[in-house]
Amino acid sequence: MDNLKPGAANSSPLTPLGFLDRAAVVYGDCPSLVYNQTTYTWSQTHLRCLQLASSISNLGLGRGDVVSVIAPNIPAMYELHFAIPMAGAVLNTINTRLDARTISVMLRHSGSKLVFVDYQSASVVSEAISMFPPNFKVPVLVLIADQEFEESRLVSSADFQLTYEVMVIKGDPEFKWVRPKSEWDPLTLNYTSGTTSAPKGVVQSHRGAFIISFDSLVEWSVPKQPVYLWTLPMFHANGWSFTWGMAALGGTNICLRKFDAHTIYSAISRHGVTHMCSAPVVLNLLSNFAHVKPLSCPVQILTAGAPPPAAVILKTESLGFIVTHGYGLTETGGLIVSCAWKSKWNQLPATEIARLKARQGVRTVGMTEVDVIDSESGVSVKRDGTSLGEIVLRGGCLMLGYLKDPEATSKCMTKDGWFYTGDVGVVHPDGYLEIKDRSKDVIISGGENVSSVEVESVLYMHPLINEASVVARPDEFWGETPCAFVSLHQGRNKGEVKESEIIEYCRSKLAHYMVPKTVVFMEELPKTATGKIQKFVLREIAKKMGSINSRSRM
Amino acid sequence: MDNLKPGAANSSPLTPLGFLDRAAVVYGDCPSLVYNQTTYTWSQTHLRCLQLASSISNLGLGRGDVVSVIAPNIPAMYELHFAIPMAGAVLNTINTRLDARTISVMLRHSGSKLVFVDYQSASVVSEAISMFPPNFKVPVLVLIADQEFEESRLVSSADFQLTYEVMVIKGDPEFKWVRPKSEWDPLTLNYTSGTTSAPKGVVQSHRGAFIISFDSLVEWSVPKQPVYLWTLPMFHANGWSFTWGMAALGGTNICLRKFDAHTIYSAISRHGVTHMCSAPVVLNLLSNFAHVKPLSCPVQILTAGAPPPAAVILKTESLGFIVTHGYGLTETGGLIVSCAWKSKWNQLPATEIARLKARQGVRTVGMTEVDVIDSESGVSVKRDGTSLGEIVLRGGCLMLGYLKDPEATSKCMTKDGWFYTGDVGVVHPDGYLEIKDRSKDVIISGGENVSSVEVESVLYMHPLINEASVVARPDEFWGETPCAFVSLHQGRNKGEVKESEIIEYCRSKLAHYMVPKTVVFMEELPKTATGKIQKFVLREIAKKMGSINSRSRM
Repeated sequence: MDNLKPGAANSSPLTPLGFLDRAAVVYGDCPSLVYNQTTYTWSQTHLRCLQLASSISNLGLGRGDVVSVIAPNIPAMYELHFAIPMAGAVLNTINTRLDARTISVMLRHSGSKLVFVDYQSASVVSEAISMFPPNFKVPVLVLIADQEFEESRLVSSADFQLTYEVMVIKGDPEFKWVRPKSEWDPLTLNYTSGTTSAPKGVVQSHRGAFIISFDSLVEWSVPKQPVYLWTLPMFHANGWSFTWGMAALGGTNICLRKFDAHTIYSAISRHGVTHMCSAPVVLNLLSNFAHVKPLSCPVQILTAGAPPPAAVILKTESLGFIVTHGYGLTETGGLIVSCAWKSKWNQLPATEIARLKARQGVRTVGMTEVDVIDSESGVSVKRDGTSLGEIVLRGGCLMLGYLKDPEATSKCMTKDGWFYTGDVGVVHPDGYLEIKDRSKDVIISGGENVSSVEVESVLYMHPLINEASVVARPDEFWGETPCAFVSLHQGRNKGEVKESEIIEYCRSKLAHYMVPKTVVFMEELPKTATGKIQKFVLREIAKKMGSINSRSRM
Repeated sequence: MDNLKPGAANSSPLTPLGFLDRAAVVYGDCPSLVYNQTTYTWSQTHLRCLQLASSISNLGLGRGDVVSVIAPNIPAMYELHFAIPMAGAVLNTINTRLDARTISVMLRHSGSKLVFVDYQSASVVSEAISMFPPNFKVPVLVLIADQEFEESRLVSSADFQLTYEVMVIKGDPEFKWVRPKSEWDPLTLNYTSGTTSAPKGVVQSHRGAFIISFDSLVEWSVPKQPVYLWTLPMFHANGWSFTWGMAALGGTNICLRKFDAHTIYSAISRHGVTHMCSAPVVLNLLSNFAHVKPLSCPVQILTAGAPPPAAVILKTESLGFIVTHGYGLTETGGLIVSCAWKSKWNQLPATEIARLKARQGVRTVGMTEVDVIDSESGVSVKRDGTSLGEIVLRGGCLMLGYLKDPEATSKCMTKDGWFYTGDVGVVHPDGYLEIKDRSKDVIISGGENVSSVEVESVLYMHPLINEASVVARPDEFWGETPCAFVSLHQGRNKGEVKESEIIEYCRSKLAHYMVPKTVVFMEELPKTATGKIQKFVLREIAKKMGSINSRSRM
């Protein structure tokens, strides 16, 4: 049996790019992309992607070359998820909310040769390019205009050598797209959002993206031809793989340049949205919308990116959304842990349902193994719901590594075959894991580990609090104590509640050592482009506030 | 970017075996297997499989050792799909309807070291073993008794060294199952059904089975916790991968030792069956059942294995089944072409729907490429629905090769990276392919290729005909001419229709050269264990009938 080795027919490289050819055959005259007044069919999207790939290839770009995109969730952004790798190049999407300096660093770090730029990012990209050192080769810039917006015409095209629609039109629709030579060939380069450290360039392979695409479709039980609303930025881990996943199922991608609660509710009713992905902050937005009415048809909503407070899940579900909660990292290309729902749980009270659903859950079907281990001994923690440990993973969707950063790569992908997430969690007696914190966010108070997430979930239950984030503040006696930053619901003002009342509220629901010793009121908490609260900013503020001595207050 | 190579964390071998651990966590107290009065939960199935794997391992068996099973669709058969490979060994399921000689040949060819034998196959296996040459090492035999059947106790256990339940009981539920070292390690060995030639041993890898399991779940849009009725034998390409697929989704496996139309309808209503797979011959059985009533809830039925006549699909759907039609081979481990349904087709008349659905369709999402090529030029045939060519494939679920048969392996898996199926088909203008014949079944009449399947589909429309099969009969003038073998519906007798009337009927619907020149009436057509009509038997009969000279009859 040892004589049987893989050959050319059975080891043809796995890649999600082939989903598009097939969508054009099966769903050719069905809508692929809807954006304001524009609608494309899968047949059109297929041809446009081939044309684009051909034009990219005609520029002399191909295998291993990095091509970047800075754009919101518009049709071009979706098309480039296929077109760039179909030319053989590596797709690098860049967060539209980053500043010129960071963009400049990323473009130079990646050695990007071609950058597609949405008109709204034109000036920031021009500025980023102007920061390139002399002699450093500047990438070719392509302007993505937007006929739906008047102001798009006002963008100076002086810095742009090419325009998007011309590249489409001039491309060859008969172009033979470039298949990967190996399934381990790089497909994407995504810089991490950098909540805790300098951005790192996550390189994902064709194989990894193929596996996570399938895994996510099975895990979320997505049927054929869903109507998918893009609120999750596609530049965020390629929309948790659903960019490719929608082609696999012939879904309709509803694109939005930007959104608020009103826009989302309008899109849901207008297009008959069935599925959407969102960070918990969007769930909060949806459930606190003043003019909210329960949905006429249920909408599946997949949330991850930060542990959602149970109270937020409860509110969202009461409006007719069906929340699935999961966990993933840019390094996994999508969700690899999911709170797989048990039908018997439906019998429980809504608060209990929300509490169970706030747990991240179990590994997805496609993952090999997920464990929570004691950082010192390396042994699995007890399944008691309280023993903290680091979440470790192995599976086919894990990144190849960080670009030009062997040290960071080998630090998290160790020889024992685990990927170390840096996230801290517990395992409940039923085998479901729950994240308690980023390891960097754990507050160590008098030798006790305090999970900032646990304190936050109590603050979120307070009727006046809209958002909450808890970080460590230096403490002369305890080393660190929890410091809470909160914003109140719209229309509420600081005068309505005192710091001491909030502390008292927490004391009634938490162990003493976990209770915040400081509460800071803010208009709005600082966030990353993907809606994650920037704890490092709050940590800086807490540090600058100086040490307290909270012994007396215990 | 070239520095980034796969490491231990992201290249952990893909395998479907891990689905079971997860099912025990997520669906632990939900039913896994139901068989007459016996029900197991996923937690129980998980433990029983670990115990069995431990007992197999204690016999000194492991990596690369072949372990065989001869059993119908009973719980033990399902459990062994996990337990044998969890011990590291290779699962070899053997068709229960084979004769002792063939079983003996297979056991010796595979070098099987342990054979699990259902009590009903006890005597045929004893006979098979008795045919071993002296000095040839005989495998250890394990008897699978069946407490649901009295007669099971009467089986002489003289030839059996072990019994199944004792192996379960004595095994260690804490056994650490043996993960594959490489995802290319062999998982299963399935002998082809041998409709056209000597059985060949198809070796499938862990990776291939993982990919086809996911692909089939996505392709058929199977939701979580389906109720799956086992009519398709698990020994037929491991139930087209749904053995593992059901563990991935926590489905309930309804097991049946044997079935007829009545048993199937009873099981559907009793267990609330949602999904089943069946060869077209079972669709025929279901739609011709005398006491049939339309289903109260729709049942998804996936059919493949032989091209189903449109008339059979039409009848089956009229009863409330939703037919999905696909195509696969033992060599692909499951279905790799599927008639992906377009919602606009639902507007068409039922006969047109059935005609479209009788086509095999397009490659599944997980397959790399499928094409129909001209055997001589190697070029893709025209998409005209009439140009015949051979169906060729490439994709991750293709077998590693045939056991100890490098010649057969290299004949179908060529250096150009295609797997040659030996099936002949056309591509319609919309890109959907339709199988016209096994290449060996094509009738060459006066230089024209006649698709036996096309002639059969006309015969199936005849109101009196129950089953039909068309093969070549030697013809002095034309070389070969079509010879039809038919059976009539129950209660109908030969006197009701003449050979000439059937020929006349075909003449009204087919080109002259395609019309059968001979029609033979049979009580029942000869079939393989998986319900496929044995054309080689009919071909022998036609040959023995001798040449005709049908020139005058044109």
